Amino acid sequence: MKEQVQKTFEALFALEDIREVLREALPTGPDPGEEQAIRAGVARVRAILDDLEAGTGSPSVTKIAGSLGIRNREEEIINIQPIQAAGRLTPEARKALIAYGDGYSTCDACRKPFRLDKITKPPIAAFHEDLARFLNMDVARVVSGARRGFQAVTSTLVGKGDPVIVSALAHYTEFLAVEGAGGAVKEVPVSKQNLVTPDAVAEKIEAVLRETGKTPALAMIDHVDYLFGNVHDVAGIGKVVHQYDIPFLVNGAYTVGVMPVDGKALGADFVVGSGHKSMASPAPSGVIAATAEWAPRVFRTTAMTGDLTHRKFGIKEVEMLGCTLMGANLIAMIASFPTVRERTLRWDEEVKKSNYFIDGLLAIEGTKVLSEYPRKHTLTKVDTTGSFDRVASTHKRRGFFLSDELSRRGIVGEFAGATRTWKLNTFGLSWKKIRYLTEAFQEIAAKYDLPLATGTGPA
Amino acid sequence: MKEQVQKTFEALFALEDIREVLREALPTGPDPGEEQAIRAGVARVRAILDDLEAGTGSPSVTKIAGSLGIRNREEEIINIQPIQAAGRLTPEARKALIAYGDGYSTCDACRKPFRLDKITKPPIAAFHEDLARFLNMDVARVVSGARRGFQAVTSTLVGKGDPVIVSALAHYTEFLAVEGAGGAVKEVPVSKQNLVTPDAVAEKIEAVLRETGKTPALAMIDHVDYLFGNVHDVAGIGKVVHQYDIPFLVNGAYTVGVMPVDGKALGADFVVGSGHKSMASPAPSGVIAATAEWAPRVFRTTAMTGDLTHRKFGIKEVEMLGCTLMGANLIAMIASFPTVRERTLRWDEEVKKSNYFIDGLLAIEGTKVLSEYPRKHTLTKVDTTGSFDRVASTHKRRGFFLSDELSRRGIVGEFAGATRTWKLNTFGLSWKKIRYLTEAFQEIAAKYDLPLATGTGPA
Repeated sequence: MKEQVQKTFEALFALEDIREVLREALPTGPDPGEEQAIRAGVARVRAILDDLEAGTGSPSVTKIAGSLGIRNREEEIINIQPIQAAGRLTPEARKALIAYGDGYSTCDACRKPFRLDKITKPPIAAFHEDLARFLNMDVARVVSGARRGFQAVTSTLVGKGDPVIVSALAHYTEFLAVEGAGGAVKEVPVSKQNLVTPDAVAEKIEAVLRETGKTPALAMIDHVDYLFGNVHDVAGIGKVVHQYDIPFLVNGAYTVGVMPVDGKALGADFVVGSGHKSMASPAPSGVIAATAEWAPRVFRTTAMTGDLTHRKFGIKEVEMLGCTLMGANLIAMIASFPTVRERTLRWDEEVKKSNYFIDGLLAIEGTKVLSEYPRKHTLTKVDTTGSFDRVASTHKRRGFFLSDELSRRGIVGEFAGATRTWKLNTFGLSWKKIRYLTEAFQEIAAKYDLPLATGTGPA
Repeated sequence: MKEQVQKTFEALFALEDIREVLREALPTGPDPGEEQAIRAGVARVRAILDDLEAGTGSPSVTKIAGSLGIRNREEEIINIQPIQAAGRLTPEARKALIAYGDGYSTCDACRKPFRLDKITKPPIAAFHEDLARFLNMDVARVVSGARRGFQAVTSTLVGKGDPVIVSALAHYTEFLAVEGAGGAVKEVPVSKQNLVTPDAVAEKIEAVLRETGKTPALAMIDHVDYLFGNVHDVAGIGKVVHQYDIPFLVNGAYTVGVMPVDGKALGADFVVGSGHKSMASPAPSGVIAATAEWAPRVFRTTAMTGDLTHRKFGIKEVEMLGCTLMGANLIAMIASFPTVRERTLRWDEEVKKSNYFIDGLLAIEGTKVLSEYPRKHTLTKVDTTGSFDRVASTHKRRGFFLSDELSRRGIVGEFAGATRTWKLNTFGLSWKKIRYLTEAFQEIAAKYDLPLATGTGPA
């Protein structure tokens, strides 16, 4: 690890050790032994800072709890991993994790009626309203991942044997949510451009009606899919779906938190988003929002009564299992939210950077983009069979030559060993990093005599 | 906030700002402007350390992201809140949160077959084996809270209208898990001592058989209940339940991670634990463990096939929704685990401290303990109707006088305003804090002329 990074972590950890002394002290304050420990701790942090500043010193901490390496992927490296890009924390979220890490930290001021989304200190209730507004939906709940949002909806709406419309690009968690409810997925085919179209959805619904005699219980479509990062005409699909009176769930795992999402404009009855995928939040975290029409069903409160005690827990929501995303993850989501909200307004710039890099890659002759092009998203599937894979075919490290070359330049997140079709995500990289990344790929191409198309690369 | 605590947080946050500069830098290292920002950051941390050491300076950061106060409950205060005590993080868990906060941080080295519990770097696969061994069960999975463990089991085993045995002290999340699956709770009455006995369970099963003609689909009993913190004869109950061939889930939310739990010895088919309640982990987190007999059912893999693409995601587990507790929470759980495992071996000492404090409280005449006594757990329900509530009846602040007095002494976590029956938890408090706490309550009693029984209080 680079000295500066290593020493930054060591200083953070040494401060946590000081904090632990404070935690052990009585409310009356540290005793003389504890004061001594704090002074020793401060001296240690100062010595670490000297090293941090001078770029000197050898690592004094290499593992947490004896087994966990210190993760430095975002500090030292350009990370183009397809699912990690937009889940990287903001500094504010990292501070929130520090302050609110303890188990039930959100429950300090839990008062009647004792439900997470009603807590006002910290401002959890207000955040729920912000979230609903942000998505232009009526009611929002936080959940432990988008998949829990799918599950809540399928468990509410899908019965045994019910068909559910998904697309041929649906994420596996949608399959599982349907399976858990006892339903059956019915996949809408994609166009030649790998797009899910309203017409194809209509045809599939008709086919399901013919085949099963049942109207699908739910349609669940990915706003942007995980395979190509293509932006589908969800608003058009919403219109079709509603003509059949089918409730419509928009899977915004790749959109909520990175680009503007207007649930009502999309015709969504439910919008589901992922905190750890696209809202700069720790895993697991996510959001499910519903319209006023559907909220009472998916967020229905318990009707169960104890047969003996006659106990009722009337305010608790069945699908949410009561309180949902308690603790640090929720507070980190809240801490990132101002930045997340603001960054969706700068989505055009992210798309520009995505296209700049993809153009630079396409300039390497033989390279293709399998996603829609020009790019409308930062997640892209590329095909380097005609370029880097030609090198791999004769290289002694085979496909790993590319990983080696990238790694040498401080770039990770490509699928190691893959030189044919693979995915990457440029979300959140600064222009400086985008240029560096583009040049790195072109440099590697040049090193292996892959021709660069003139005039097509970045200036 | 106390200066030392305030300045410790400020130093941590200032280091996160330095870290952010490193994150923005290219892999080639910080440019001159970034180096300058790092130097300025280091100077800022040094100035904060000066204040930390001298106990000087005024707060320069009071909110995170403009809205979130800095949580200092564990740094300045003795916290006796019933659900928070054993979810307080270890220093190692806090360091893990710092290093692994980013969204999908656990997925850096995810390789075939692409499932969380198979990841070896960080050592997630090994942790799953450790967890199963720790509980003396065969297979374990991490989940986002104990409630998700209940849900996985009810969703697997409970059908529409199926009766499920729970106790009259069952947690509301068990009700919700049964309701979600379409079942009906059947509560076992408690004894005069508020204990759930094997005989009472047998009688309830018989009653359910008579009433419904159905063998209950599941029995779900709290090892230690949330209302009294009583330790129930779960091993005895397990024997009864198995005589009827009913699968048996032990809810270890208040035991797994604080006291020894041997799933096989308890006759458990499933053991469920809570990370944020009892395993020094951030919320949401938890564990579900099963025997080799039941694991294939609750951890069954998906059988769903895309009707068009014929896609299968065969390794993913339906009830787990694929990968479960990704990211920071899992890594923090792993980081706390060595301490957690070790502390269960020191449970006797925790019980001693619990009894020391309760004895001190009982020495205040008129005070009663509603939980079993002597205490076998650190969570206790007390009745101060005959002591502190007598003061409250004439005090202008009513029940809040007690909260005021405790707060003045740096103690929080009692239910504010309650002076009749209320709960507290002493888990994890050092002897020094236990003595302080005991003296504080007796001091308050003395201040309001509540008599202290001679010879019954702490020496």
